Amino acid sequence: MASLKSIITFQSASPSQEERVTAEQKTSETILGHYRAVRRQTDLLAAPLSAEDQMVQSGPHTSPVKWHLGHATWFFETFVLTPHLNGYRPFHPLFRTIFNSYFNSAGAPPDEAMRSTLSRPSLDQVRMYCRYVDDSLQNLLQSANLSQEALRLAELGIHHEQQHQELLVADIKHSFWINPLRPAYQGSSLPPINQLTAPPQKPHAYLEGLYEVGSPENEFHFDHEGPRHKVHLKSWRFAVRLVTCGEYMAFIEDRGYERPEFWMSDGWKVVQQHGWKAPLYWEKSGQEWKVFTCFGARKLNEHEPVCHVSYYEADAFARWAGARLPTEFEWEVAAAQVKSEGNLLEDGIFHPMTARAGEGDVPVQVYGDAWEWTASSSAGYPGYRPAPGVAGEYMAKFMSGQMVLRGGSCATPRSHIRTAYRRFLQPEARWQFSGIRLADDGV
Amino acid sequence: MASLKSIITFQSASPSQEERVTAEQKTSETILGHYRAVRRQTDLLAAPLSAEDQMVQSGPHTSPVKWHLGHATWFFETFVLTPHLNGYRPFHPLFRTIFNSYFNSAGAPPDEAMRSTLSRPSLDQVRMYCRYVDDSLQNLLQSANLSQEALRLAELGIHHEQQHQELLVADIKHSFWINPLRPAYQGSSLPPINQLTAPPQKPHAYLEGLYEVGSPENEFHFDHEGPRHKVHLKSWRFAVRLVTCGEYMAFIEDRGYERPEFWMSDGWKVVQQHGWKAPLYWEKSGQEWKVFTCFGARKLNEHEPVCHVSYYEADAFARWAGARLPTEFEWEVAAAQVKSEGNLLEDGIFHPMTARAGEGDVPVQVYGDAWEWTASSSAGYPGYRPAPGVAGEYMAKFMSGQMVLRGGSCATPRSHIRTAYRRFLQPEARWQFSGIRLADDGV
Amino acid sequence: MASLKSIITFQSASPSQEERVTAEQKTSETILGHYRAVRRQTDLLAAPLSAEDQMVQSGPHTSPVKWHLGHATWFFETFVLTPHLNGYRPFHPLFRTIFNSYFNSAGAPPDEAMRSTLSRPSLDQVRMYCRYVDDSLQNLLQSANLSQEALRLAELGIHHEQQHQELLVADIKHSFWINPLRPAYQGSSLPPINQLTAPPQKPHAYLEGLYEVGSPENEFHFDHEGPRHKVHLKSWRFAVRLVTCGEYMAFIEDRGYERPEFWMSDGWKVVQQHGWKAPLYWEKSGQEWKVFTCFGARKLNEHEPVCHVSYYEADAFARWAGARLPTEFEWEVAAAQVKSEGNLLEDGIFHPMTARAGEGDVPVQVYGDAWEWTASSSAGYPGYRPAPGVAGEYMAKFMSGQMVLRGGSCATPRSHIRTAYRRFLQPEARWQFSGIRLADDGV
Amino acid sequence: MASLKSIITFQSASPSQEERVTAEQKTSETILGHYRAVRRQTDLLAAPLSAEDQMVQSGPHTSPVKWHLGHATWFFETFVLTPHLNGYRPFHPLFRTIFNSYFNSAGAPPDEAMRSTLSRPSLDQVRMYCRYVDDSLQNLLQSANLSQEALRLAELGIHHEQQHQELLVADIKHSFWINPLRPAYQGSSLPPINQLTAPPQKPHAYLEGLYEVGSPENEFHFDHEGPRHKVHLKSWRFAVRLVTCGEYMAFIEDRGYERPEFWMSDGWKVVQQHGWKAPLYWEKSGQEWKVFTCFGARKLNEHEPVCHVSYYEADAFARWAGARLPTEFEWEVAAAQVKSEGNLLEDGIFHPMTARAGEGDVPVQVYGDAWEWTASSSAGYPGYRPAPGVAGEYMAKFMSGQMVLRGGSCATPRSHIRTAYRRFLQPEARWQFSGIRLADDGV
Repeated sequence: MASLKSIITFQSASPSQEERVTAEQKTSETILGHYRAVRRQTDLLAAPLSAEDQMVQSGPHTSPVKWHLGHATWFFETFVLTPHLNGYRPFHPLFRTIFNSYFNSAGAPPDEAMRSTLSRPSLDQVRMYCRYVDDSLQNLLQSANLSQEALRLAELGIHHEQQHQELLVADIKHSFWINPLRPAYQGSSLPPINQLTAPPQKPHAYLEGLYEVGSPENEFHFDHEGPRHKVHLKSWRFAVRLVTCGEYMAFIEDRGYERPEFWMSDGWKVVQQHGWKAPLYWEKSGQEWKVFTCFGARKLNEHEPVCHVSYYEADAFARWAGARLPTEFEWEVAAAQVKSEGNLLEDGIFHPMTARAGEGDVPVQVYGDAWEWTASSSAGYPGYRPAPGVAGEYMAKFMSGQMVLRGGSCATPRSHIRTAYRRFLQPEARWQFSGIRLADDGV
Repeated sequence: MASLKSIITFQSASPSQEERVTAEQKTSETILGHYRAVRRQTDLLAAPLSAEDQMVQSGPHTSPVKWHLGHATWFFETFVLTPHLNGYRPFHPLFRTIFNSYFNSAGAPPDEAMRSTLSRPSLDQVRMYCRYVDDSLQNLLQSANLSQEALRLAELGIHHEQQHQELLVADIKHSFWINPLRPAYQGSSLPPINQLTAPPQKPHAYLEGLYEVGSPENEFHFDHEGPRHKVHLKSWRFAVRLVTCGEYMAFIEDRGYERPEFWMSDGWKVVQQHGWKAPLYWEKSGQEWKVFTCFGARKLNEHEPVCHVSYYEADAFARWAGARLPTEFEWEVAAAQVKSEGNLLEDGIFHPMTARAGEGDVPVQVYGDAWEWTASSSAGYPGYRPAPGVAGEYMAKFMSGQMVLRGGSCATPRSHIRTAYRRFLQPEARWQFSGIRLADDGV
Repeated sequence: MASLKSIITFQSASPSQEERVTAEQKTSETILGHYRAVRRQTDLLAAPLSAEDQMVQSGPHTSPVKWHLGHATWFFETFVLTPHLNGYRPFHPLFRTIFNSYFNSAGAPPDEAMRSTLSRPSLDQVRMYCRYVDDSLQNLLQSANLSQEALRLAELGIHHEQQHQELLVADIKHSFWINPLRPAYQGSSLPPINQLTAPPQKPHAYLEGLYEVGSPENEFHFDHEGPRHKVHLKSWRFAVRLVTCGEYMAFIEDRGYERPEFWMSDGWKVVQQHGWKAPLYWEKSGQEWKVFTCFGARKLNEHEPVCHVSYYEADAFARWAGARLPTEFEWEVAAAQVKSEGNLLEDGIFHPMTARAGEGDVPVQVYGDAWEWTASSSAGYPGYRPAPGVAGEYMAKFMSGQMVLRGGSCATPRSHIRTAYRRFLQPEARWQFSGIRLADDGV
Repeated sequence: MASLKSIITFQSASPSQEERVTAEQKTSETILGHYRAVRRQTDLLAAPLSAEDQMVQSGPHTSPVKWHLGHATWFFETFVLTPHLNGYRPFHPLFRTIFNSYFNSAGAPPDEAMRSTLSRPSLDQVRMYCRYVDDSLQNLLQSANLSQEALRLAELGIHHEQQHQELLVADIKHSFWINPLRPAYQGSSLPPINQLTAPPQKPHAYLEGLYEVGSPENEFHFDHEGPRHKVHLKSWRFAVRLVTCGEYMAFIEDRGYERPEFWMSDGWKVVQQHGWKAPLYWEKSGQEWKVFTCFGARKLNEHEPVCHVSYYEADAFARWAGARLPTEFEWEVAAAQVKSEGNLLEDGIFHPMTARAGEGDVPVQVYGDAWEWTASSSAGYPGYRPAPGVAGEYMAKFMSGQMVLRGGSCATPRSHIRTAYRRFLQPEARWQFSGIRLADDGV
């Protein structure tokens, strides 16, 4: 068998599978500091929620908050402590199964839909689990014989936890939305709406050329963000800001949801099936649109970016507007030229905000506010190879049938977003903070 | 409304929507000749089938042969004759609905699953419909005031019919497969297996560089095959022939279908769900594999290309073999360097054949034999714009969630395949003649 | 094992499993005559249908006509000829599988939904199969050593075929209904509507008492129609005729389909799910209701019995009308007092007809016109025991989750209906000719 | 309209709709005492469960414990306090929706599957709701102008709450079963298994005759338990005790789950679909069967009654054993002759126990231990009429497609079970404490 396999593979000619160079050799102190900050942030996010709130799973793509907490901790236990901390004893033998998500190589993960049934372990037990792993991980990071591999995996675990912070916000918002009591996640009174008027929409032009995209090797990134490589782009134009709620209302009023000519075939089916007539979290009360936020429901602000739309809606809106969505590389080239600033998780607003005009028509709202759907579907870059080891399942598995989003949202941690960051979601997903950036071909 | 819309669109800056130049101004005689040849071919394909055979619809992605006949004719009636032949009277008012596939703008198409219930119109009536439209179309093509637009649409209709010829072969094969009597589509005795031994598998190398891909404007192509544009490719290697059944058996025997590490996450779910253990049409009888063909079942030939695999299987096999699938552009650049020859529909074999070695290790089996799954998912090219008019629904609609296949198969008409031809299929599809070409990164 | 089983069973005390007495010892000549008449009737029913028509399967509870033909013949081959005709050779080894319905003990039956894919065997082959079995069966029935058991099974086969005659009519009507061309099954012009006015609706009273119900042992009946046994009934009243379309329209106009208070919980869900607003085959065209019949669509006649309603609709209508459905025993006692006449299959009308008043307020339309939903669900009678042998699967299997209908319809053969006849259908079924008889408690 | 309706109804002839006589005029003190005892029992049942435990909903037919608490209270608020306590102010306007189950006439009930998402109201709020309603109800019951109707509805509410006590036990057991940690509901150590040997199985004979069944008018009962009426029964035999686990193991070992001849058609499908190989809560560990109980998992005791089987399994077992299930009236006549004692909720065992032989072969385990599936399906008795008012939805709605169980189980409250009590469940239900009593025809 092996002989036949060697005949039909090209491995003999492949580059030898060397250990990949770790990004800019971060010190263990840096990682430790980052670790502590991120764990503190997780605690902050969970703080307003009761043990009961942390049990809710409102749909197939969401998870209970308690499970997010346990799973983020599980990652450190399974991939960092168990293989790299001498004498480490797992907190509980069954937690390895219970808090597994989809890592087939770490044992058969339980049915996702069953996460809502885990009243045990209790929230208190999960917190004990978190502290237990915290102590061990801090010991490991401070120990003398800490390996580079352990450090690399610890950093991966930190970024993994940040992904789950973002999921946690989107999931709890959805949980409260489907509760007839419509509770608020944060605070009991709504923060004041900013009174800004969105700047005029305009295209910003970019030249045809050969560009470099993808993450540099020496910065932290998930495997699928690299390798850095060249792409040839025709000239294109990129909207200076996100599409607003007011603009999206014009689409609705122009019967956008009823006219098949704007929609992808699959998208049209989804619209019919779910009876979509507006973005998620919009609700008409009399003549007035209201929107549900992490602080409860309030009147829709026309100047704010539209949010919680699916890829299909973003694409249909763009077609209606005579434009299109940018490709992920058009997005990345444009984003590389602006500062990595924006309305992010740490701002505690959890809602996209009205844009302020940039200087000299430079695009704004590129980072934060709302993820931006692109016209690109998930795929590995040229030369892509999954990270070695069991964590190699991390991203490679999802590279089919999903669309790429870029730029992060108001629920993305500041130290988690970067120019080359790619997020994949199914085209019908709406529960994430996802919005619309227009583009078109250059002249 | 309109005013707001104009503010948020970029149309003012877009190039004016001129009439696209028709490919190399084919004469109406050329088109007429092509039309007649294609219609003759359709008749040949349907000839071995009874009226009952032509009723069968074996699953959600297939159609009855009778419906294929009616639908191909419907295209000419709806898009060519009705708007362009003065005084044309449709054959039957309801046929416009019955034989619509998915053209929402041509009226609400009926549920696809209901196509198998159309005992009426009878096959005889459908044949009368075909002849009626034939006569009118030939009149139109020979008339003095034939417009360029009508000519363009007639040519589109011819290629559309060729697509359905290919579907017809795949659909009827599947219909007979699920019938316990396992009838043969063609002939009653199997043609002799060719006694060739497949040449050794080898990689052929290509250099990094900026390449042009996509269809030239002046040749016929579906809208999504253009525009021609530049892509930057890293160096890569391309297998000289398709993967054989024998090589695929090695994957099966190495428990390829039981090891999640080879599979995409979605693919692994599909394998579990359907209990896949081999390609479609393979059947183990005792210790021996048999394969079902258009001529009935026969012993599996290890040297033939493996066929009827899904994208997930092609991808998993490649990972197991230490290789990967080519991107569609790697494929196209390699294909542009070989002659457009192969085992195609007109050869009447309807089954992939053992490769003969190419001269000087030039890749073979690039055209025909089996469609080749690529690592690329369906998307519009830079500058892509749907063809104007109602036929613009033609391809644009399907650009999500599907993977690109290249090169045609033993069921593809010779005048239908071309270097830039892109076919889209859902990653789990197996009923088409789809096989595997390996690739990897260059050195 | 056996010992434990004998301890926990009561078999030792059960009556010995003797051969059941065959009903009134019909001669083989009688059976042969019946057989020929029924086969002739089947041919008559299939005659107006093309081979394509006989392929259609319009839904999960229906079968193609060709399959009905093959299956009725299969029953004779499998249960009569194979075990009882010396030297009988089955027509085709695979037909035993293909034409099996649900007899698990006769081999794994194929998926019902796949019946529509059987273009082979062709209709001609199925007809040859029918003739082949016909010849053999007539030989058997005329042979000297014909056993009582074979005679019993032949008679069972005849009644089984009559059941499929009735299904055939309902199935082909439904097939043509979902075809946009709406073909007519019988004739091309509609028969004239009878101009009668339905007699006034009235209750007919019955006294409390102990009644005998169920089939007498010495008449042919399916196993679940016996044994004959006593039931105690309170006094009750029974409507003299079926509910008319006009009365049902009043229910619709009184918003019957929108008021949950009339509906069983499960029925209300079904109404919502399917969006029912009227009986099957009713269609509103402008202000006028039309009804689809075996002769095509025509204006609704208010005096005709309402037909093609589900149990849920019958039950809701009765509640709205301040009445209820009769139990199956109330029905049977009432039916035993009237003549077994009515509008049945052989009349060739295939549609319920306006009632004529009975003499002295005796209930009419008890047999034929439309099956009458009862308030009883399917269950075995006291002392019920499945018929011995493989045909014992015949009825016993279906005794859960179905409701009992009584009296036959315009699609029931005359020699097939009898006072004790019980038909079981799922409460949501509407494609059979099923109507409504009201009842209530006596005074 | 009204005129037509009056023509087709029989109401004019119906008995006038008088107020039904309330059962034996219980005093308000009696009801108050009962109320307090039942509420105390509910508290006891919920006491071992955390707020998180009370959130879990493990499947479509189960509800979270917190929801059971709220719903039982909601019944009192909606049907007793709101209409009958002057000046009563509902606790919270939305609770009327949230805690509605299926009472369509009390507003649109929310999707059952969403009950698990109600983290708010919190358990503390639900407890406040319970106390609030408790206070009001006790005031009402002690008030001078308490109407008979209010008293009747309060009693109905008490029995309704008892139904939910039973559901609560079954639901929480199932919740813990699907949790990989397999927590115990009650206590941490298992109670000792009683060391009894089940008495020999034997039939007890009953004579043919006319019997009275159904609840007497002057005792409390749900509407569908009456009216009392006569039934004629043939002679029959009734097993003296429930089927044991050991006997059921014999069925399994005799390949009972693999032999279609024992099964109803629908049941066989369900067995295939779910891959059933044993009762719910049975688990094979090595060669040994274990069973999951409310006190955790333990070794299977062959002498205990088998429990948590579906109707299909009970029916198949009976057929395998050469017996059948009793009808509900055979059961009721037999039960009327024994004392209403048994292993019930208040015993706190929550598990069926090995039988002790009765005196003189009188059947034992008739009440308590395990519900007994009967061969009868749910239907209204002769003369049945839903209770007047909105609570009339109480039972009438469910009278289709369900089977009748009799006798209560180890989770049924003592004051809730009675000879005429009928419980309806879908034939595939297994999560209730449901077992098997054999019967057969008399000699």
